[in-house]
Amino acid sequence: MENGSNKIYDISMPITMDMPVYKGREEKRPIITVNSDFSTGTVYESSIQMNLHTGTHLDRTLHMMPEGNTIETVKLEELFTECRVLDLTQVVEKITEEDLSGKDIHPGDFVLLKTRNSLEPILEKDFIYLDRNGAEYLAKIKIKGVGIDSLGIERSQPGHETHLALMEAGIHILEGLRLEKVAEGRYQLIAMPLNIIGSEAAPVRAVLIKQ
Amino acid sequence: MENGSNKIYDISMPITMDMPVYKGREEKRPIITVNSDFSTGTVYESSIQMNLHTGTHLDRTLHMMPEGNTIETVKLEELFTECRVLDLTQVVEKITEEDLSGKDIHPGDFVLLKTRNSLEPILEKDFIYLDRNGAEYLAKIKIKGVGIDSLGIERSQPGHETHLALMEAGIHILEGLRLEKVAEGRYQLIAMPLNIIGSEAAPVRAVLIKQ
Ligand SMILES: [Zn+2]
Ligand SMILES: [Zn+2]
Repeated sequence: MENGSNKIYDISMPITMDMPVYKGREEKRPIITVNSDFSTGTVYESSIQMNLHTGTHLDRTLHMMPEGNTIETVKLEELFTECRVLDLTQVVEKITEEDLSGKDIHPGDFVLLKTRNSLEPILEKDFIYLDRNGAEYLAKIKIKGVGIDSLGIERSQPGHETHLALMEAGIHILEGLRLEKVAEGRYQLIAMPLNIIGSEAAPVRAVLIKQ
Repeated sequence: MENGSNKIYDISMPITMDMPVYKGREEKRPIITVNSDFSTGTVYESSIQMNLHTGTHLDRTLHMMPEGNTIETVKLEELFTECRVLDLTQVVEKITEEDLSGKDIHPGDFVLLKTRNSLEPILEKDFIYLDRNGAEYLAKIKIKGVGIDSLGIERSQPGHETHLALMEAGIHILEGLRLEKVAEGRYQLIAMPLNIIGSEAAPVRAVLIKQ
């Protein structure tokens, strides 16, 4: 448990007013406002306005399912857990069952999908995502959680099949990771979401620790 | 490092629109907005507006010092660390050097001050705080960090002596903790702040793990 000299890898997106956001929608970019500074007083104090799916965040099933669950019922133990980073940087458009089947994934695993999204400037639109059959494959194995280095785990799915396949299987979903600094392998994941009561998602400062 | 069946204690304030805030100032309460739901579409999505000192958060020295440091330069290793919860629930108004001197505090310690604030409904105004001489005592010992279960580590100090004594000594400051569930003793602290670039503070989902 002691951190000693363990290296911590930050796998979160820096939060800025011009950060990349899902599909480049301007209303999803954060607004950071300085409410007071030393020109008018003795403290510097600011506030932020942000969409709960901007940057690195955890989705809950309310995001896609009426009567879905919300942030405050997350078991934090499930987000302080061993995990595996899978190198999928060869994948061109979307991650399929075929891409995942050689990766020796087991029930209860928490997997982080490292794609081309981590190697290039972040793509707001044509990002690599998890295909429906990839999600169904992970659901069948009954993994604990999945994270991806794109602004969404799906795109171009009006029926949200990827989200729903994962959510119906009770699989945690982390989106907006940055995995450029970490190689394939095993790590300790720490991903504690802000406890915004009743919300369908929350920002997370996610980190990995090399074991 | 493996979490196994370690118990995680959540020591963060739940974030809601009517949560207690510093001095009860209405402009510091968060505003949570549902931007879309299932009555108009296929996803539920919301956003938040909040002061960066609302709820559980980490202060950086820019909060009180022109040219002070900001969130992105925090060494995350210093916020994933052994810590000690100190029981100061007998203290009536403010924590002084005398209250701390019997607690066997050492250089490099990270201490969390558990006060009456954790036992009663959260006080927005007359909360227990760390007195200037208590802060100077901790600075002299050269601890690594201090956290408190009040909405501010000081109050009624127009010169911000408590903040400044700690900040000048390079001591991390966590405010807005909830320590009602944890007894005096040693724990592992995890307190990763959202990486809001350039900001003087950031919200944190802080947890303790019993060692
Ligand atoms: Zn999301
Ligand atoms: Zn503060």
